[in-house]
Amino acid sequence: MGRSYAVLGTGAIGGFYGARLQQAGLEMHFLLRRDYEYVQRNGLAISSIQGDFTLPKVKGYNSVKDMPRCDVVLIALKSTHNHLLAQLLPPLVKDGSVVLTLQNGLGIEPKIAALVGQSVEVLGGLCFICSNKNGPGQIRHIDYGQIQLAAYGLNYQPQGITTAMRQIATDFERANIPIKLEENLLLARWQKLVWNIPFNGLSVVLDATTDAIMADRHGQKMAEKLMREVVAIAARYGLNIPESFIQNRLEDTVKMKPYRTSMKIDYDFQRPLEIEAIFENPLRAAQKAGVPVPQLTMLYQQLKFLEARYLSRE
Amino acid sequence: MGRSYAVLGTGAIGGFYGARLQQAGLEMHFLLRRDYEYVQRNGLAISSIQGDFTLPKVKGYNSVKDMPRCDVVLIALKSTHNHLLAQLLPPLVKDGSVVLTLQNGLGIEPKIAALVGQSVEVLGGLCFICSNKNGPGQIRHIDYGQIQLAAYGLNYQPQGITTAMRQIATDFERANIPIKLEENLLLARWQKLVWNIPFNGLSVVLDATTDAIMADRHGQKMAEKLMREVVAIAARYGLNIPESFIQNRLEDTVKMKPYRTSMKIDYDFQRPLEIEAIFENPLRAAQKAGVPVPQLTMLYQQLKFLEARYLSRE
Repeated sequence: MGRSYAVLGTGAIGGFYGARLQQAGLEMHFLLRRDYEYVQRNGLAISSIQGDFTLPKVKGYNSVKDMPRCDVVLIALKSTHNHLLAQLLPPLVKDGSVVLTLQNGLGIEPKIAALVGQSVEVLGGLCFICSNKNGPGQIRHIDYGQIQLAAYGLNYQPQGITTAMRQIATDFERANIPIKLEENLLLARWQKLVWNIPFNGLSVVLDATTDAIMADRHGQKMAEKLMREVVAIAARYGLNIPESFIQNRLEDTVKMKPYRTSMKIDYDFQRPLEIEAIFENPLRAAQKAGVPVPQLTMLYQQLKFLEARYLSRE
Repeated sequence: MGRSYAVLGTGAIGGFYGARLQQAGLEMHFLLRRDYEYVQRNGLAISSIQGDFTLPKVKGYNSVKDMPRCDVVLIALKSTHNHLLAQLLPPLVKDGSVVLTLQNGLGIEPKIAALVGQSVEVLGGLCFICSNKNGPGQIRHIDYGQIQLAAYGLNYQPQGITTAMRQIATDFERANIPIKLEENLLLARWQKLVWNIPFNGLSVVLDATTDAIMADRHGQKMAEKLMREVVAIAARYGLNIPESFIQNRLEDTVKMKPYRTSMKIDYDFQRPLEIEAIFENPLRAAQKAGVPVPQLTMLYQQLKFLEARYLSRE
């Protein structure tokens, strides 16, 4: 019998990967909020560069109390809602469960590990995907899709390739989701921040898509300089990210389809921004290690300023 | 007989000070472009915190060819139009004329001096004023109004207080314009940049007035950090701007009426921004002296990015 999965957050990420896993025959349980009634009636519709498909019937829930404990819990909430995990996670896990967070940024796994205890393995999944939620139960998959998977150990100690990682990789591969197993979660997280920090931040401050940033000489320079600051922090933690990595990310971004980052989408909808995970925690790491990151600091302050303008209105 | 004045640029600055000088009985000649016909018919209307007044009749021109050579030429164009000065200035000056630029930023006087030759003294006037042009020939004076006046010498060598400075000060005082004579133009220019760089730049990037920037913890921090970078450049040129100067500028800005900076107004009208004088020339000075100014650099790049978006559409 296949593994059972709970999906927390049925949006651009959780909706897409969850639907793929269900399509591949896995037992999926989706937590829904605003979209609960719509999805109960209509299921999920995925429009994807790899082919559209619909799941007319999914197991949806509007409370974790009604959900079964699962073998795997996928966390795909906005990290701005992670204060809810203390309520959401414990009812869903059992001894031997695995919690896989698909969220961006730093410092998320330690908090999850503290909530679920030592009998539950915590994994981090870094999603290289361009996808959006277009409406209730409607996900548009625009580009890419790979997940890098790595295991969390206390203080981000590298865990190598674990059995749970291999099992989940089998399921994801069955669902045609390209998956790459990594031995060092912290390195993978910092590598992802090399892209996420400049492009999420600048897309909001400059009101720009990724292609517009890369098409402009000054946009390019800013992205590159910010990447270097991120690399400098990682280096102080013994994580070597070579210069070629920066150049490759910049070239990838030029080749990529024009993309509105997730932070820009949140900003356009005047939702809280994932500043803590993507900016604050990396900045804290920089400060702790005494690495000067003036441009990252200013970008962070600009985001806080812009977010406060609409959050303070509420 | 009083001195004759030519005013190049009859806007928020040239229109206001020029009208005050004419009101005080000086012989004023105004160069006008788009507003020429309107002002010929209707004159200038000043709405000021110090009392409204109108000048139903002014000597307006739509070409410097029709203007007399004057004792003083006031330059109050946007510095983005300074490439026009090669045509505009020579027909207006004679031996013994004084050219006074009321523009913001660095590196303007050397170019003017090169255009007019050694028989014409060049002065810099730093305007501490909040004023806008509301419509053709209509100027609104919101707050302040003082001018700091200093003489330009080759490579910004301090010139002390010159006779021309004293003469002009007499005229301006007659017109109730508070004027302060300074011995060191370069120091005055850098002191003014301490305010102009953060508030002009951040107001554009954050879409904010001065009060909104100062009301936000992160806005305040950004302004202060940018001010410190400006001070660090000046210090490398032997110009000492004490810490108290920064604190006083910040406090002044809190007390000031909510103000949309001139760069923000230009941005909102999608006009070229005064980036060269206010950002590029100071950055060049930093580079030449080997002073790292990462936040000033990023703010500059953000402005260039935002300006290019609409300028490239034309």
